[in-house]
Amino acid sequence: MAVFCQSPLNLSLITSSRNPNPNPSFRLNLSAHSRTLVTEPPPVFTCVKSFAPATIANLGPGFDFLGCAVDGIGDYVTLRVDPDVHPGEVSISDISGAGKKLNKNPLWNCAGIAAISVMKMLNIRSVGLSLSLQKGLPLGSGLGSSAASAAAAAVAVNELFGRPLGASDLVLAGLESESKVSGYHADNVAPAIMGGFVLIRSYDSLELIQLKFPHEKELFFVLVNPEFEAPTKKMRAALPQQITMSHHVWNCSQAAALVAAVLQGNLSVLGKALSSDKIVEPRRAPLIPGMEGVKKAAMEAGAFGCTISGAGPTAVAVTDNEEKGREIGQRMVEAFLKEGNLKSSAMVKKLDQVGARLVSSDPR
Amino acid sequence: MAVFCQSPLNLSLITSSRNPNPNPSFRLNLSAHSRTLVTEPPPVFTCVKSFAPATIANLGPGFDFLGCAVDGIGDYVTLRVDPDVHPGEVSISDISGAGKKLNKNPLWNCAGIAAISVMKMLNIRSVGLSLSLQKGLPLGSGLGSSAASAAAAAVAVNELFGRPLGASDLVLAGLESESKVSGYHADNVAPAIMGGFVLIRSYDSLELIQLKFPHEKELFFVLVNPEFEAPTKKMRAALPQQITMSHHVWNCSQAAALVAAVLQGNLSVLGKALSSDKIVEPRRAPLIPGMEGVKKAAMEAGAFGCTISGAGPTAVAVTDNEEKGREIGQRMVEAFLKEGNLKSSAMVKKLDQVGARLVSSDPR
Repeated sequence: MAVFCQSPLNLSLITSSRNPNPNPSFRLNLSAHSRTLVTEPPPVFTCVKSFAPATIANLGPGFDFLGCAVDGIGDYVTLRVDPDVHPGEVSISDISGAGKKLNKNPLWNCAGIAAISVMKMLNIRSVGLSLSLQKGLPLGSGLGSSAASAAAAAVAVNELFGRPLGASDLVLAGLESESKVSGYHADNVAPAIMGGFVLIRSYDSLELIQLKFPHEKELFFVLVNPEFEAPTKKMRAALPQQITMSHHVWNCSQAAALVAAVLQGNLSVLGKALSSDKIVEPRRAPLIPGMEGVKKAAMEAGAFGCTISGAGPTAVAVTDNEEKGREIGQRMVEAFLKEGNLKSSAMVKKLDQVGARLVSSDPR
Repeated sequence: MAVFCQSPLNLSLITSSRNPNPNPSFRLNLSAHSRTLVTEPPPVFTCVKSFAPATIANLGPGFDFLGCAVDGIGDYVTLRVDPDVHPGEVSISDISGAGKKLNKNPLWNCAGIAAISVMKMLNIRSVGLSLSLQKGLPLGSGLGSSAASAAAAAVAVNELFGRPLGASDLVLAGLESESKVSGYHADNVAPAIMGGFVLIRSYDSLELIQLKFPHEKELFFVLVNPEFEAPTKKMRAALPQQITMSHHVWNCSQAAALVAAVLQGNLSVLGKALSSDKIVEPRRAPLIPGMEGVKKAAMEAGAFGCTISGAGPTAVAVTDNEEKGREIGQRMVEAFLKEGNLKSSAMVKKLDQVGARLVSSDPR
């Protein structure tokens, strides 16, 4: 049986070795939530393979606190016990797919950072691991690429050692990774790990609310990814510093309506709320050539709603029918070309209700 | 069978006689939504009595778009066919209870305005009505006093004529009343008419979302009303004009969490979200002597959350136990006296899941 230690002392030790000047609120999070095993668990597998899905953060008015997972696209991590790796450490042996540019130093790689974070929580000191990352998601696309790598790695380590940690610990590990590579936001990594829609109510003491979309309802995302770079930093710099009271009340009511629509399975309201952001989208859309025309095209083609996925440049539209989703996607691709002179590709995907998971394992 | 006419022309006529310079957005609402009967329905009763409950608007981060109804306190309207009243008109015969100061001219009385609005929608030209208003709610308390009168009157007229209109039409009638006496907001009148929690997603084309709190869960409101006047205008003038992005995101996430908590029946999250407003409550609470201490006392006594009801001065706390609610109320009353030097009274009430309704009727 696993024995946990939950003192702030242990947890500050977790952060200290690789984060000499940690963000205080992150330290607070860790001390409030994550745990360190006192007894090091033995590995229950020699090798595991995990998958974590793409995610759509923001969802219009849900800026910085709401995201959801998308089925069928994401990143894979293969993790094995490796006697050639120094005990207690992880080595990145291989990165394939869309992430060949990524740093193989685990301290500078999202999968590596998350894996190390989980290893520290589990107090792993006797076993070295090698990690292979298969990127299914393009970098900087607004589909939660870094979060998927972190989520897959966190889940892989946890599974390899018999799954002693729960989802919220894994989200904290993923959040540590996200805070180093793309900002202190859990709206990608929480749904990547937990699946479905996830609302982050608080970071001070990390509090996640899972929002169940009714299983009997159909929900498809049309994701159209143009050949264009929209760096998160630039997209964040475009945000207004101050917001008027009327815009605040409007966006607040749309975010609240969006959450109600998810829980009630009301795609019409979900689409309208998703499309109604008056604060972030109006600043960011003009930075993505053609985005305004793409949204118009999606709506004219019958989408319930359309907005920017994450910080872009991917556009996301919602529909309740896969075939219709393909038509909407086609119109959006045409609009990106016509209005923005950008090539793009469309895909139609379901909501992922599971989140990051074990795909295969080799027993000891 | 009732025959409806739904052209903007008819609807602009509805507003023109008593509102020569109407608020354009209100006109837009009416033209988008409300209806005028082509055929005047006959009364099905000679007299009806209706009730409409108190309401709690804002609920912390739900400022200006969220409200809920409270069981067991509210206003009553008795409405009778009166041959002494000019056909097509309404006369206010009597106002009793807490509203003796109110104007008896129906054009300047919330119940009168709402009654006239519904009569116009129903195209009533042959019957005169007399209305008696029994105020159960104190004026200017933050408990939706004007909305309760309007809701009770709107429902009374609709019931007297066989209930041809639906809830959204009645909300529009109530909104017309609210816009004249306390501001263009439906967050009191919508729950007063519909019951439960109601979210207003849009005014441009009025869109209301009913949020069902699970029937099997217990939810009690502790309402503590101090002897203090907090005029809505003054409370509105205290609001900030501009909001920082971080406060916006925070309040938005709390509003979204509040809605999730209502639908999921999670009182712990409901209370935390309710208590977490960083925009409105911090500006208004200092204007109500003792409010900050009252909130602290409520939380220390075990409330899940506490905030200002509507624009105040009533404080509202939430709990899942009636007995505990009485204890919390006692602590809040003590705090109002100690910290604000204000006398106050406490009551513990359940959520009203029904809304404004017929209480009794005399058949023709």
